[in-house]
This record gives sequence, structure tokens and C-alpha cells, in this order.
Amino acid sequence: MPSGNMPNFKVKHIDIKTGQKSIIMNELDAVDMMLRIHDRVKIKKDLIKVVALVDVSDSLVMRGEVGVYEDLLDEFPVKNDEIVEISVASIPPSVEYIRKKMKGTPLIKGEIYSIVKDTISHSLSELEIAAFLMAEEYVGMTMDEVEQLTRAIVETGRIIDFGETVVDKHSIGGVPGNKVSLLIIPIVASAGLKIPKTSSRAITSPSGTADTMEVLAPVEFTVDELRKLLQDVGGYIAWGGSLNLAPADDLFIHIEHPLNIDPRPQMMASIMAKKLAVGASAIVLDIPTGKGAKVEDFESARKLGNDFIELGNRLGIKVRCGITYGNQPVGHTVGPALEAKEALQALMGKGPNSLIEKSTSLAGMLFEMNGITPKGSGQALAKDILRSGKAYQKMRDIIAYQGGNPDIKPDDIRLGEKRFIISAPADGYISQINNSSINAIAKAAGAPINKGAGVMLYAKMGYAVKQDDPVIEIYAESEQKLKCAQIIAARKPPFLIEGMLLEEVSQF
Amino acid sequence: MPSGNMPNFKVKHIDIKTGQKSIIMNELDAVDMMLRIHDRVKIKKDLIKVVALVDVSDSLVMRGEVGVYEDLLDEFPVKNDEIVEISVASIPPSVEYIRKKMKGTPLIKGEIYSIVKDTISHSLSELEIAAFLMAEEYVGMTMDEVEQLTRAIVETGRIIDFGETVVDKHSIGGVPGNKVSLLIIPIVASAGLKIPKTSSRAITSPSGTADTMEVLAPVEFTVDELRKLLQDVGGYIAWGGSLNLAPADDLFIHIEHPLNIDPRPQMMASIMAKKLAVGASAIVLDIPTGKGAKVEDFESARKLGNDFIELGNRLGIKVRCGITYGNQPVGHTVGPALEAKEALQALMGKGPNSLIEKSTSLAGMLFEMNGITPKGSGQALAKDILRSGKAYQKMRDIIAYQGGNPDIKPDDIRLGEKRFIISAPADGYISQINNSSINAIAKAAGAPINKGAGVMLYAKMGYAVKQDDPVIEIYAESEQKLKCAQIIAARKPPFLIEGMLLEEVSQF
Repeated sequence: MPSGNMPNFKVKHIDIKTGQKSIIMNELDAVDMMLRIHDRVKIKKDLIKVVALVDVSDSLVMRGEVGVYEDLLDEFPVKNDEIVEISVASIPPSVEYIRKKMKGTPLIKGEIYSIVKDTISHSLSELEIAAFLMAEEYVGMTMDEVEQLTRAIVETGRIIDFGETVVDKHSIGGVPGNKVSLLIIPIVASAGLKIPKTSSRAITSPSGTADTMEVLAPVEFTVDELRKLLQDVGGYIAWGGSLNLAPADDLFIHIEHPLNIDPRPQMMASIMAKKLAVGASAIVLDIPTGKGAKVEDFESARKLGNDFIELGNRLGIKVRCGITYGNQPVGHTVGPALEAKEALQALMGKGPNSLIEKSTSLAGMLFEMNGITPKGSGQALAKDILRSGKAYQKMRDIIAYQGGNPDIKPDDIRLGEKRFIISAPADGYISQINNSSINAIAKAAGAPINKGAGVMLYAKMGYAVKQDDPVIEIYAESEQKLKCAQIIAARKPPFLIEGMLLEEVSQF
Repeated sequence: MPSGNMPNFKVKHIDIKTGQKSIIMNELDAVDMMLRIHDRVKIKKDLIKVVALVDVSDSLVMRGEVGVYEDLLDEFPVKNDEIVEISVASIPPSVEYIRKKMKGTPLIKGEIYSIVKDTISHSLSELEIAAFLMAEEYVGMTMDEVEQLTRAIVETGRIIDFGETVVDKHSIGGVPGNKVSLLIIPIVASAGLKIPKTSSRAITSPSGTADTMEVLAPVEFTVDELRKLLQDVGGYIAWGGSLNLAPADDLFIHIEHPLNIDPRPQMMASIMAKKLAVGASAIVLDIPTGKGAKVEDFESARKLGNDFIELGNRLGIKVRCGITYGNQPVGHTVGPALEAKEALQALMGKGPNSLIEKSTSLAGMLFEMNGITPKGSGQALAKDILRSGKAYQKMRDIIAYQGGNPDIKPDDIRLGEKRFIISAPADGYISQINNSSINAIAKAAGAPINKGAGVMLYAKMGYAVKQDDPVIEIYAESEQKLKCAQIIAARKPPFLIEGMLLEEVSQF
């Protein structure tokens, strides 16, 4: 629309964060301007001009007023009652690229970069980001596109240059109780490799690695603090959320969560972007495989592993993948404090076999990739380091340098005091542990916010149990949450005993 | 969560319509309750309990307050400062069904009904509805599913029983200037068939049938008024928007528009639901086919036609489809007043051939389907009715009964007075008319809100023109909009002349 004659509106601040660059107009003004909800307008005050999405109200703003949401004020600092000009904006190129992808056409570098950049600047609506993610899910992406998506996420985020060679490990997630990082990082650092582990807090699970580590030591640091930690101790376990390594990723996850999707290209780009951003030269990827995990069968796991390796080659990162057992929780505990305790016990020489095998095999892969041992001998070295107490000593250093108490003993860790035991209803073998039920119980009990909440598994698959033997114990910090968790457990049985009657079908 | 111990919140009215059942919580309260944006809560006051989606603010509501949006107040009438209880809600079944569809599993009757019902009750978030529509787009639907979707849209809307046999016509849209209904309805009604035509206002086009008819007579009526109109005149052309025939459809369109998708199953269900709701026994469907139309080639048009016929069989509606020419506008005008004028001229004996051929062939199909003529003779009867002036007389009755002036002459129709002619830059033949450019120009000029705005085509495909001959004239009601339309026309040429230099590639 030619300038000089645009409709004028009086600003009214609207104190809501929408996560989008939005304004709100009176319904009748919108009709006059032929605008519909989610359409875009240019809003202009003196020399500042921004594009915003349109919301409509028939009462919050009067005719002639425009509501300016909080999200827009940083970039468009206007005061209440100031006059701004509004005109219809054209569709931004990134929206056209999303439409192109929706129609099945692969995108090129600049197009993907434009989508990622406009996601970060909140210039795309949630519906448009959802459309992009759904197109990734249904149309898929070529390896070229995944590479460009990864690079765009890195380029729009922060890069940490440690000034030396670093390695990393990552799990694609999906299995409860996966506290292996608390063993792998000290084992790997003990051998002299530098391993700067940033991890997430739980989004949909009862405990993220950052939640678990936080039981032992603080996990929030500045980039400068992390650089010093790595230099001084050789490894750390920190929360990556505040580092701004991949801000686009957080916004994509924010949309994936309510849609309950996890498009493969996005997942790969998200993981590899964070590794590229810290300059990792070699990483080992844990791919838990099994019923209820993200990958359900070996063939898919192998395919995913090979895709990660190819993506790594394109990005200059050596990748090895470990396909691990994902049918039931790793170790015997789920929930921040319970998992921290179990990891500490394992470092002190008293860990469950499943946890030790998994941790040392993944750590061993990093040794082999970096020439610390020949191929085939990595795990043996990792076990030696663990058994010798060197890994425990390194973990004490890590805890101390991160600001925790290195003398902490497993029994010092405070667990939830409200507890409930679920016993075996009959003699028999445990034939199934239900990951999603265990997750739901631990979350209902309060994990990860209540650090002491979670689930202890006294028996796992294949264990013989007698009637009334304890199988699972729920830990909570309040009676109310314990009760919630019990209700979930009753609705969604966390385990099955072979020979148990699953359902009775009868007319009588 | 067990009741009796739920957190209490103080109500604060938030005067915004979100189109979703939403509340807004303080960020810290949400964290405490482990709630993320778009999660669901149960909100309870005395005996009234509703489920709502969570929005988050760090300033609009204080800790302990809950903002209740306008959309929720009808169903959950609470006053400011009243105390309500809030607890985490489980995911509604319709969300699970959407996830099932996203994974590629066909849905059964009850599942589709549940999604449509929860869409209407605003219990699904925009993202969830978007996910359903994207799954339709990418996964597709079986004919069983399309049938159930159609029935669910009808069952959740209003049904009009006219107490007698009625017929109908519909265009799937996509071609500008398609004012054929203004000829078909009076032609068909002249032969004694009852044809209650409800139509839409333009959503993305410069003029819907309702917008065009409104130039000649009012188009908004109650159901009782429509019943009387049909009884008295045998036909009408009304706006369907306020009749609540398919409220779900409006909500789906509201999401399809910003996503720029039009999933085939949804389009079929949307059209057929409105026909089923008025009890149509036979319908003729216009499928404009060609570059820039919704269907680009004959094979796809035939496939779509056969799908409509099968869906009709399942619903007890006889369907015939006319594949029509969609490469350029129908007739010579685009925009409400220009189109109304052209339709009136055609009824009075002076219409362009493309408009008359198309209208009479579609009307003739309805004659043949209803035994008014034998197969092969329908169009001849339609032309007779048009030429004899009977259709014009019937249109005068329709205009009069709808409350317009039956004596209106084509020249009485007020056209936009700001005009701009685009002339042929060279001698030659018109080799292409660009539908999407014509649409964009007419909309920029102000159509359909400004009834007098639009585009007149002096030449169409194949016409020989001399340099400086007028090809297109833009009509607008303000200089500003005329200027906008000119800018669009310069960017996106509305026509090509054969032999015109498309682009010069040169080093000099």
C-alpha cells in the first residue's frame, strides 16, 4: 500500500506473551482492511517498521486502537496512546518456502535458513511452524536438507570455541532411567579426553540428565565458566538451556510437544547442531531400541545410525552409534534423586550390571574413535577406569568444580518420604516392564520438579518373584502426588508377571 | 488429581477471543503445576467443570490468579475475583484420534465424530486441528472416512427440511468471474425444479456468489424465510454463513486459510455436507479445470468427479459433474458489481458466450437428472428458457422476493469510478490470462468489500489485439486502492501477448 495514506491507530499495550509477533485489532477495523486472523500487517512509527500477525477482538481494543503484545515491544518500542500506521503486508519468503516444502519440493540452503531465522525472530506463526514440522514428518527431507537445517540452527545460535579437540555423547532418548552420562563423562575425562556435556532438563520424561546432575551440583553456568570447567577438570555435566546454542530448536520443540510429533530430520538436526556448536570432533550416539522407545526395531535403529554417520561426515564430525536395549528402564531407578544416587553408587563400585555395561560400552567407543585404545579394547579400558575408582575421583572433581559437595555419599541424597510399594500379585517371572507407565507414574509422583520423586524397580524383566514380593516402589514428596501416581499405576500397569491373567472374558 | 485438595485461583476476566477454550496462568504457577503452554487443565467452580487450554503470562495475571478468556465464559460463567480450582486434565479422546490419523491409521465413525464435535466446542487447539487437516492432506482418507466426516459435519450442524424434493449446484471454485449461479438458479427454477442455493462470501477470491447476488438483493435470511422463498419462487440465492448448516466447516476453513491447504477429503465433505443438510436429492458439480484452477488436468478432474459421485451414492444424493474450462475467468468481469451486471445482461439476452454455454450446460444436467428432458436435450431446454426471457422473469421474481428492486437495469449498477486501463503493449494474440494475477488485482482494488471494485477483461485468450488496445480495466472505489491494484498488475502481469518478449537475456 502506498505510504502517506495509511490508516492510523492508537497504541494500547497488551500485557500478554504470545510467542509470536502479534498485534490485536478491533474486529470491524480488520474487516475494513480485509484482514483475517493470522494475516500479516506492517506496523510503522516514524522510521521503525515491523511485520506482525493479526489477532482480532470485538471488545479489548476499540475501533481505531491497536493492541501491541509484549513480544513486539522490544523491536517496536511504542508507548500507550502513540499513533502508528498499519498496512497490509505481503507474505514473507519463509512462508512461501514452507508452502513449497508442504508440496513436496526439497528446499535449498537459503530457503531453510530463512525459515529458521524467521522462527527465531517470531515472524512465523505457530501454525506456520507446525506446517513446516508436519511437512518434515510426512514429506521427509533429503540429507542435503537435513545438513542445511543443522547448519541453519547452528548459524542462528551461539558457537562455543573451546580452542581444543572435544568429544561428546548423546542419547536420542526414550528410555527411562538413562543416567549413563553421569558415568560416561567422568570415565572419558579420566582418560584425558575433553568432554563438555551439555544436557537438557526433562521435557516429557521424569528426569533429564541436567535434572539428575543437579542433585549433586549446580548445572547452570555461563560460557566462560564452562570454558574454565573444561580446562580445569576435562569434563562437566551442565544444563544447555541457557547457553543459546540452538535457540531455534527450543522453538521447534515448543510446537512439536503439543502436536506429539518428533520428525526425524528435525531430531537429527537438533542433536547434531548442538554438537557442531561446541566444535565436537567425535561423538557417540546412544540409540535405545525396543518397544516403547523412540526406535522400535533393529532395522530402523541401523538405518538411523547410518543417517547420523552420513550427517556427521558432511559436518566434519566422526559419529559412532550404539544400539542399546530400550525395552525397560536402564538400571533400577527413575527420577532425579533416585538416579543420582544409583549413578553415584555405580561410580563407587556398586552399580547394576545394565547401567555399567551400557556406560562402559559407550565410553569405550569414544576411546576407540580417538585412538586411546585399538578397536575392540575400548570397553575394557572404560571398565578398568570405573573399577579402579579413577572415574569416581574424576566425578568428585567435577562435582566440586561445579560447586557441589564432593564428599556426598549415596545415602546423603534425600529421597521422597511418601512411598508406596506395588507387590507381585502372584508367583512368576516379570515378563514385561512398561516404559510409558513407569514414566507416567514418576511424573505423577512429581518428577522432575520434586527431585525426590520417582520410581524404584526391585525387579526387572526375567526376574522370578514370589507373591507379595515388592516389584516397584513409588517415591513422592507429598501424599497428594503419591496418590496421583498410585491412580496412574492402577490404570496403566507398570509390569506384567508371566502367567498372570491379563483379562477375564466371561458371561457370568 | 484427587479433588478436595486442588490449588485455588482467583478469576480475572480477559477480554479477548482466542477461538479456543483457554485460560491464562502466571508462568510460575504453571511451572509449579508442571504445565506447559497448550497443556489442558480442568477448571472447577462449584458444580461446573470445564477443560481448558493453558496460556502463560509473567505479568498479565499474578501468581494465584487465573485469566479466563471470553470464549470460556458462556460455558463457565464466573465473576471477577471468584475462586476456582484448577487441576491437570487428561488428553481428550479426540486428540488421541488425531494422533492415530497422523500415524496413518484410518479412523472410524465415532472417532471422526469426536474430532468434529470437539472442534465445534473449541475443545481442540488450533495446532491440533491443523494437525488433523495436515494428516488429511498427507495421509489422505478412505471413502469410508470421507463419508463419516461428511455425516459428522451434518450432524453437528443444522438441517433444513424443505418438505419436498430439492436440487442444487455447486462449483468447487478456483476460477475468477464464475457468476454462473445467477443464471442457473432462475433457469432451473423456471422449469419447476426447486433449487435453494446457499452460497458463500469470498474468502480468498474477489467475489463469492453471495457477494455478487447482494448487489441485486439482500442475501441474509432466517431458515423460515428461506422456506417461504423456496415455496413462493422455487429458488433463491442466499448467503449460507449465518444458517449454521456446517459450523465445523467454518472452523476448519479458518485453519486451512493461514496454512494455505485445501485437503481433498475436507473439501469433498464440506461441499457434500451442505447439500445433505438441505436434503438435496440431485446436484450438479462444476469442476473448473486448467492452469491456476484447483484442478489442473483432466485426469485429476475425472478422478475427483468419480469420487464425488461415489460419495453421493453413499449419502443418497445423485451427483453429476461438469468438467469446465478453468484457464481464464468466466465471462469478462471479476468483482461483485461487475459480475452482477454481466449476469443481468446475460439474463436479458446479451451475455458472453462462455458464460451462457457454461450456465446452460450445467442447468441442462440438472434437467436430465430429474427427468425434465431426456439425456442429451437438457442444455437445449436451458437455452430456450434463457432466450425466451423466462429465466430473466424468474430472476426478477427472485430479486423481488429477496427484497431487491426487480426493475434494476444493468446500467443502474454502480461500478467503481476510479479506473485504470492496461493496454496491449504490441500487436498480437492474447496467449495467456493469469487467473491468480486477475484475482490479486481485483482484491487489491477492493473487491469484494468494495462492491464496485474489480476487473473488466476486454480481451480474452486467443483474441487478436492491436498495440494500445485496452485489454484490462481495473475498477476501484478509491484512488489509493486503484494504485495498489496497479502495483500488483505491474508485478504480476495479468495477460501475455503471443510474440511478446518475455525476458531479455543479454550481456550488453
